[in-house]
Parts: sequence; C-alpha cells; structure tokens
Amino acid sequence: MREPTKTVTVAVDAMGGDHAPDEIVRGVAQLSLDASHIQTILVGDAERIGALLQKTRHDPERIAVHHAGSRVMMHEKPAEALAARPDCSIAVAAELVRDGAADALVSAGNTGASVLACARTFRRIPGVRRAPLAAVYPTEIRRGEKDDPFSLILDVGATLEVNAEDLVSFALMGSAYASAVSRNPRPKVALLSNGAEAGKGPPEIVEAHRLLASFTDINFVGNVEGIDIPRGTADVVVCGGFVGNVVLKMLEGVSETVVRLASYAYKERIIWRAGLMMLSGGINRLKEVTDWQQYGGAPVLGFDKLFIKAHGRSKARAITNACKVAAKASQSGLATQIETALQRFELARAQSLTPAAIVKPA
Amino acid sequence: MREPTKTVTVAVDAMGGDHAPDEIVRGVAQLSLDASHIQTILVGDAERIGALLQKTRHDPERIAVHHAGSRVMMHEKPAEALAARPDCSIAVAAELVRDGAADALVSAGNTGASVLACARTFRRIPGVRRAPLAAVYPTEIRRGEKDDPFSLILDVGATLEVNAEDLVSFALMGSAYASAVSRNPRPKVALLSNGAEAGKGPPEIVEAHRLLASFTDINFVGNVEGIDIPRGTADVVVCGGFVGNVVLKMLEGVSETVVRLASYAYKERIIWRAGLMMLSGGINRLKEVTDWQQYGGAPVLGFDKLFIKAHGRSKARAITNACKVAAKASQSGLATQIETALQRFELARAQSLTPAAIVKPA
Repeated sequence: MREPTKTVTVAVDAMGGDHAPDEIVRGVAQLSLDASHIQTILVGDAERIGALLQKTRHDPERIAVHHAGSRVMMHEKPAEALAARPDCSIAVAAELVRDGAADALVSAGNTGASVLACARTFRRIPGVRRAPLAAVYPTEIRRGEKDDPFSLILDVGATLEVNAEDLVSFALMGSAYASAVSRNPRPKVALLSNGAEAGKGPPEIVEAHRLLASFTDINFVGNVEGIDIPRGTADVVVCGGFVGNVVLKMLEGVSETVVRLASYAYKERIIWRAGLMMLSGGINRLKEVTDWQQYGGAPVLGFDKLFIKAHGRSKARAITNACKVAAKASQSGLATQIETALQRFELARAQSLTPAAIVKPA
Repeated sequence: MREPTKTVTVAVDAMGGDHAPDEIVRGVAQLSLDASHIQTILVGDAERIGALLQKTRHDPERIAVHHAGSRVMMHEKPAEALAARPDCSIAVAAELVRDGAADALVSAGNTGASVLACARTFRRIPGVRRAPLAAVYPTEIRRGEKDDPFSLILDVGATLEVNAEDLVSFALMGSAYASAVSRNPRPKVALLSNGAEAGKGPPEIVEAHRLLASFTDINFVGNVEGIDIPRGTADVVVCGGFVGNVVLKMLEGVSETVVRLASYAYKERIIWRAGLMMLSGGINRLKEVTDWQQYGGAPVLGFDKLFIKAHGRSKARAITNACKVAAKASQSGLATQIETALQRFELARAQSLTPAAIVKPA
C-alpha cells in the first residue's frame, strides 16, 4: 500500500526551453509553495539558478540545485550535442534519475536530445520494444472527477513503423498512464483506423484489434476514426508514430486556422464583425484551451523512470503542472503497473493458444 | 488544340445519395440552365426521373434519361450489391461512360460500390498501379484566379499501404487534376510527413521525396507537416490512403468541434455569449465553408474516365458543382495529361541512371 503523502523527487532540466532558465526556476519555485510532497532538483548553471531563486519566493526546503556545466540548445542536432557536451543539463538530470537521486524527469528543452538522453540512461521496462511519446490534447467531451476535457494520443513520433505488438504495448501503457494521471480506473482505449469495424485498417491494426479485443484487463472500445479525435470518443487513442505525429500537428494548428477561416467568412456582415470583436478575449482563451502543451506536457512511456517533455514555449505554470503530473504518475507506481500489464497480456495471450487454436488446418 | 466550347457529356447516377433522386435531378436541371456546353444523362428509375423533371425548370435539349432497373443503397456491402443487381444505376452509368456515351461520371451514392463499379468498368491509365481517391478541402490561404481557398489531398482511402512509386504517381495525378480544375498551371505539390526535411518519414516517403525532387515537370515543394494541412501551404498534399483517411475525417469534424469547444470557453462571460449569439448565422456559414464536400466532390484519379464522388448528403447545388468540375477536367484532357506526365517521369528517371549512378561501389 502506498502512502498518499510519500515524498517524490523530480529532476528538472533548468536550462531547457525557450524561456529557460527564468521560467523554469519560477515554475519550480511556485511548485515548492504549492506541493509539500514534491521535492525538486534544478539541474543547470548553479550560479544563474541561485541568483534567480534569490529573487523568487520559494520554499528552500523543497528545492535542491545540481550544477551542470553546459546545455543543449533548441535547434541543435541531438546526437551531436550529447556527444560534444556530456555535462549538459539534460544528460546530468537523466543520470540523477537513473542513480536514484530523483524519481522522474521534466524538461522543456530539445525534444530529440532529451528523449535520446533518456533512452541511453533509463532502463526499458521488460516487454517494451519501443518507448512511445504520448501527448495530451483537449476534446469536446469532459470526463473524470475534475471534469477534464483531455485525451491521450500515442505514439506521436518516437516510432515510424509499428507492428501489432507495438500497438498493443502502446495501448497498455497509455491506459496505465491515463488511469494514473486522471484517476479514471478504466479509461476507454481505442485504435485509430480508417473505419470503426474490426477488420478496417492495415494488417498491424487489424491484428492489434484482435489481440486487444480478447484482453479484458483494459477497457478496449475498438477502432475510432479521425473524426473521433477532436470529439474525444476515447480517453486513449493508439496509433503508429507517423500518423500520430501528423494528427498532433494538425490539432496544434486547428484553433489558429479556424479563427482565421472565420474571419474570411465573417468579412461581409457588420453584425458578425461586431460579434467577433466581442469574442476577441474569448478567442485568445480558446487558443489557450486548445494548446494542449500547457497541460502537463508529453510523457515518454516504457522506461523504468518517467520523463515528461514540456513544450519548448513552456512558461512557469506549464513547468509547475508538468512536475505535478510527473510526481503523480511516479507515486502511483506507473512503471510497475506497466510491467504488470504487459506480463498479464502475455500470459493471457499464451493461454488463449488452446490446443484447438494451435492445431494446423488440414 | 481543344475548342473551349466543345460539348462534354456527364453521366449522373440519379439514384445515389441521401437525397436521391429528388436533389440529383434538381441539380442536373439547374446545370442545364447554367451551362450550355454540358450534356447530362440521368441514370436510374426513368419514370421517377421523368416525373421530377416535369415539375422542375430545365432545358430538355441538354438532359437525357437512361433507365436502370435498380439501385445500391448507402449502407449495402459494395461487392454483394453489385453482384446481386447488375442493372443498378451506378453500374449502368459506368458502362455508359465506358462505351463512350458520356465522358465522365458523377454519383453521390455508396462510395465503395461506385469506386468498385469504376474499377471494374473503366480502364486504368498505363503506368497507374493504384487509382487514388482525392479530396478537396478548404484552407486559410486563398489562391488562383478565383481566389479559391481549396487544396487537394490524396489518397484519402482507396489504398492502405503505398510504396514510393505509388506516392510519385499520386503527386503527378494530383498536380494534373489541380491544374485542370483550378487553372493554376503550377500547383505546389508536397508530401505529407513528420518533418519538413528531406530525410524525414518512413522509407517510402524518403524515397518518393528523392524521386520527386529531381523531376522538374511538377512544382514539388518538399515535405509538409500536419500543421500545414489546414494552413494550405501546398495546393496538393500527397500521402498514403490510411493517413489521408484519418486526416480527412479530422478535417470534417474540426469546425463542429471548435464551435463546441468555444461554447465551453465562452460560458463564463456575458459579453462572449452575446458575441456568440451575434455570430450564430456566421457559425452556420463557417460550417458550410469548412464542409469541403459541397465543392465539387472527391475525384477518383488514374482511370481513363473521370469519376467524381459527391458527398452522400449532397443537395442540388453540390451536384451542379460536381458536374461542372467533371466537365472541366474532362475537357482539359485530364487522362491524357496524366498518361503523359507518368511517361515523362519514367523517361526522366531512366535518364538519371547515368553510368556513374549505376556503377556498383567497390
């Protein structure tokens, strides 16, 4: 039984992101005042971090600073940057987590470099062939105890080509993460395909559907189509990294584009123009609501330790949220839950191979 | 040299679609008054069609009726329906086109059945391995002589798995169709991928990029990402049928969802609510603008004859537009242009295999 007040430690890459280190330090400072059960380690230029902390209200009992001599910039090539500067903040932070000094990692820095640093430093959970990147996005349908309008979609870019087993493992990991973070014990999990029927889609999706349909540990609701993504028909949408990346980037652009499209359509009528002006504050608000990146960031699943990738543009509030989500997921024992889910799936699969099923047809 | 006023004949499946035959007949009747260079053949229940024509203003010189004894319903299984009723309107209409009685085909009926009827009846253009389904959708950016805000995306569902050659042929066919329909002689053609750089994406996209980059007949602008789809960065977006289907269905749901999302965000402020009320007419207008299906329908490319699939919900105006687009594309000699484009590509590819390129590395 876990104690709900157990302390959890999050390592934070203080030097990663468009607004680093200022907004990162500010977010962690706010967290130290909000959450008594979360310790943080700010990793980066100790002098700059110290100076920033000095002018920001925070609880010094809950923040440690760990020096790292360099950093990876946003547009550097990941492998080259990590090779050239092994003392960069993201690599040092990942090592702190590996060595047990922290339980989870948060960074708003270079996505490729941070995912690569985790892949090289963390241990993959037994049974996980590929570690997917998941993203949280807002939907029409609200759900859960906090009336959350969010769904999870994975993989959104860590893999390009996937097989049925990869998709099944994404489904199990996504379900475990959604239930850890949203406290919804039976999130609805769906495969993204080109039709709702079981036989729709390329072979790997048809096969993943068959495998998941016979596994009752998770709440598999079948296939969903593109139109179901913004609706929020499912809590967890499972797909390969290529289509997931296209979908995610479309979602990012959607509110922006519809607002502009609207301005074309409304051009002709004064009453519409007036309505749009009255809504201008609301439009900014809408943009904020549809900017999923402000809500906890994108988890990389499948490693023994959780990494949450906050958006490069993250400001203090996004960092505070990302740390809270990382702490919540770690506290719930996410890695163990994923490992158990994968084992139970393999067991169920082995058992379903009854003598009748493995006899060759004549 | 083609004469711009040459007459073109379009066969129209009068019995296909949610509002058939009434709205189909009404659309064709309107067309007969609008367009002196287009003849139509209405295919279906001759008695019902005749009765409908009698109560609708039309030019009887420009409309013929061809009887078909049955029809395929919207939710029937395509292959079964076509096998059970070879005298159904879509099959009869496709045969009229094959036999030269008409130049192009329009239907708002069962998509699977109509595509299958074409595949069985029309001849594939030499060099085309797969006939893609393309879709027109609205974008932010307006272009062309008529300030059109539309882009073309293909394939949106006729194929599931594609290779580099398929993607190249989709690019050539999409470019030919866009230039025929929009009279934009050099439409910008892009591959949909998970990054703008040439090396991004699964192997078939990387290879298609390489092949297209060295072919100057079309205006290939490289890779685009999901965010570029609603923006309209490219005039023709090329992808496999699986991802295209997901994208298209997302686009369909987008305006609907954003309007609902907006109503959540605006709930709290009276001024926003008032603004929304003033916009309610505009919101319906916006829905109409974003309903790409009202604008000419989805062409099936790669056959010697053009088939345009109008949306199942099409009303008269959509049918009129679909017939106009079908006539325009046929008049421009689309099939010949596609055949020539494919031949020129193969020639250029063969020529690029210079001795230096085919020498094996030591």
